[in-house]
Parts: sequence; structure tokens; C-alpha cells
Amino acid sequence: MIYLTGFHAIEERIKFAKSTGAACGPLLLAKPGPRAKEVVALAVNNNIRVDRVGTFELEGLAPGNRGIALRVDDIKSDRPDVKLEEFIENLGDRKDSLVLLLDEITDPHNYGAILRTCDQLGADLVVSRNRRSAKHAEVLSKTSAGAVNWVPQAETANLVRAADNLKDAGFWIYGADMEGEALYKKDFSGRTAFVLGSEGAGVSRLLKERCDAIVGIPCFGKIDSLNVSVAAGVLLYEARRQRG
Amino acid sequence: MIYLTGFHAIEERIKFAKSTGAACGPLLLAKPGPRAKEVVALAVNNNIRVDRVGTFELEGLAPGNRGIALRVDDIKSDRPDVKLEEFIENLGDRKDSLVLLLDEITDPHNYGAILRTCDQLGADLVVSRNRRSAKHAEVLSKTSAGAVNWVPQAETANLVRAADNLKDAGFWIYGADMEGEALYKKDFSGRTAFVLGSEGAGVSRLLKERCDAIVGIPCFGKIDSLNVSVAAGVLLYEARRQRG
Repeated sequence: MIYLTGFHAIEERIKFAKSTGAACGPLLLAKPGPRAKEVVALAVNNNIRVDRVGTFELEGLAPGNRGIALRVDDIKSDRPDVKLEEFIENLGDRKDSLVLLLDEITDPHNYGAILRTCDQLGADLVVSRNRRSAKHAEVLSKTSAGAVNWVPQAETANLVRAADNLKDAGFWIYGADMEGEALYKKDFSGRTAFVLGSEGAGVSRLLKERCDAIVGIPCFGKIDSLNVSVAAGVLLYEARRQRG
Repeated sequence: MIYLTGFHAIEERIKFAKSTGAACGPLLLAKPGPRAKEVVALAVNNNIRVDRVGTFELEGLAPGNRGIALRVDDIKSDRPDVKLEEFIENLGDRKDSLVLLLDEITDPHNYGAILRTCDQLGADLVVSRNRRSAKHAEVLSKTSAGAVNWVPQAETANLVRAADNLKDAGFWIYGADMEGEALYKKDFSGRTAFVLGSEGAGVSRLLKERCDAIVGIPCFGKIDSLNVSVAAGVLLYEARRQRG
């Protein structure tokens, strides 16, 4: 089971439960307040049990909470697995779609942290190969702070083909590499896909060759590189910034 | 003991050992290559033992390495503890200094991840209260990928006074909050200090009142917030971007 801690996430999940009949709850309340009151009211209206708990207890269950958490048993019920082909079909005439391709990012902490970042900065889809290998449900739901349930994810056997499919659909493919051209010199206003590799090996050669350009975050450090979820955050932020 | 994995970090550390007589080594080599060869030559010239190891073994010791790692026993020897007053004095006429104030970020994973980001994106100083409380040497050196040894850190009993001191030295103080004004609308070309709070509670009220402005990263997510090290990365990136 996992705990959703965002006010908005909890509300969305309760509405989801209402519309689909999926189970959720109880709602655990440690700190009352005007915003928590609204959430509690919504829970009560949907016959979800509300339990008062201590702040210390809640912190143990749901680290980083804001005084409230919703227990969700069915992690898988609303995991947004999608097919890349369907995603592309459903884009219609959307010009500003934002996609992340993850090349061999198998560590579940990194994968979860990237999902959390994608949720916040509005990536439309995360594509990876054999995502299952990174799918340690407990770790993922924690490190992603529940975002694993919200961010659309596609799995593919062949990332090079996925990149080709995205290109055919009008996406520009940007590989991320420390040696790449400074990020802010590129135009990410159109359909954009960022390719991120593992921290050790980077983006694989075949996939790199498919990229329209290689972009980098200007760094000055003594150590190796940014954490990959921080790099994802900066890439997505830059795209969002350019779009205002 | 910790393992430095960046080519540059290893070279710097060997030079540091040479100039101070501090101990380090052995250098563990799993993947030869032109860059590794240079590092090995430097080690040999400085009488540091070089051991061949398997890639699997090295990954266990130093996750995310690029085929080479330097063992360092004396974590503390070169930790750059500084006093805020001295830091300010030594600024001279530097106009573009970049400082991070961390308010109650006690989790060592978050603190370490922030240090790693600061190393890469060039923060000049990280100020925190009771940093010792977050100082689990093992976790810190791992989560910071060794950056704990490189990023100048100051400890203070009173963050509000630290903010005042920075203001007196011509810094603009920007608090980070999701409700803040969009980051890219502000000008970070001068001396800049960003204040980051814990993920649950944010920046405390007293400290917020000292800020010249509250800035935020525009987010759209269903869950609560960005991870604080990702937020730090985006803030520092934006400042660096504006400075070209």
C-alpha cells in the first residue's frame, strides 16, 4: 500500500475512486487546517473513513506529508500504462507535447525521482525499455512520492524505434550529455523529446545517432555529473520556461 | 572511507594529497581508456598504488563510476568548513556570487543530493543551521557523490542573522515557495542567495520575512512538490542561464 500526501493528489484519488468504484482509505489526519478540512469533507461525502493520527506516526507512514495522507491499497489499479502508438495518435494537433526517453535507467530510486519531477514539470509521457526491471513497487511509490500512479508511462522493447516513431510524429529528439550544446541555446517550443541515459554510461551510441541534437546543462563541478532526476528537472524546466 | 569517481575529482584529490601530505589511495581501475590512463599516470607519479578490479566489484564499492575510483580514507581532512563572515570578507568585488541557505533540511539524503547539485551548478556556499545533525558521513558522501568534500559549507546557529549578513553584503535573498512568482521573471545577475525549506514545512515564517522576494518553479503536478534537490538544481540553473 502507499500513501498519497498531496492535497490535490488525495482529492483526485477520491474522485477517481468515486468514478470507478476503486477502494481507497482511510484518510489519515494529523494536522487540521482549512485545506485539510476541505479534503476531509470530500472524504466523508464519499464514505471514506477518516482517522486522527499523531504527526509522528504519520511521518513514519508517509514521510514529507503536510499533516494528511490517504492510504491507497491498489497501486496498480490506476497506473497509467500507455502504448506509444496510441499516445501519438491521441496527440491530435497538440504542438507542445513533452516526452522523456529513459535509456537504461534501471535504478528504481532514480526512476521514481524522475517520475516525481515529470509529474511536477508536466511531462506527457515517459518511455523506457523494460520498465518492469525498475519496478520495485514500494521504492517507486516512495521515491516518486506517488507520481508513479499519475505519470503516463510507456514500455518498449526498442528505444531506437520509439525515437524514430516520435520523430515521424514531428518530435525533435534531444539527447542529454554533459558535452552537449548549452541547453538554453535550443528552441523547445515544439514537440520535444529528451533522451536521458544512465549516470555511468550516458545515452547509448545508437540512440545518440537518432538525436537531432545533443544538449547539455553547463556544469562546473569537481565531481562527475548531476543526478539524473535533477538533470531531468532542469531539462523540463527549460522547456516550460521557453513556453512561458 | 569514500570513493571519488570523477576523473577531475580524482586528479584534484591526488594533487591535494601531494601538496598537503594527506593520504589517499589505492586507485581502483576497472576500465582502461585514454582518460583513465592519464589518471593512472598521475597516481603512479605520486606513489599512489593502482589496483586492477572487476567492473562488478567496483560498482559495488562506488556506484555510478566510470571505470575508475580513488579510495579516500580521511573524509574530514579536506571538508571545506567556512565561516560566513570570512566568506563575505573574501568576496572582494565579486558581483555574481551564488549562495544557498537551507532551512531545516535535516535529511542527509536531501542534504547530500543538494551538495552534489551545488558542486555541478557552481554554488559558492551552502549555509545551514546545525548541519551536524544531517552529517551522517557515509550517507552524505554517497548521496553527494563526494561533493561533500568540495562544496564550501557554513554552519550557523541563526539563519535569520545569516540572511541579514548576506543582505548587508549586497546579496538579494530569494525564498523558494511553490506559490512564489515565476522564477524566470526575476533577475539573478547580482549577488544572489536562495532560501530552501524542508519539503513538508517550507521556509519558516521569520526567514521568509527577510526575503526580498519569494520565487517559485511553475509546477502542474498532482503530487505535492518537487524534491528539494531538484528544486535547488532548477534555481541554480536559472541563475547560471541568466549569467550566460
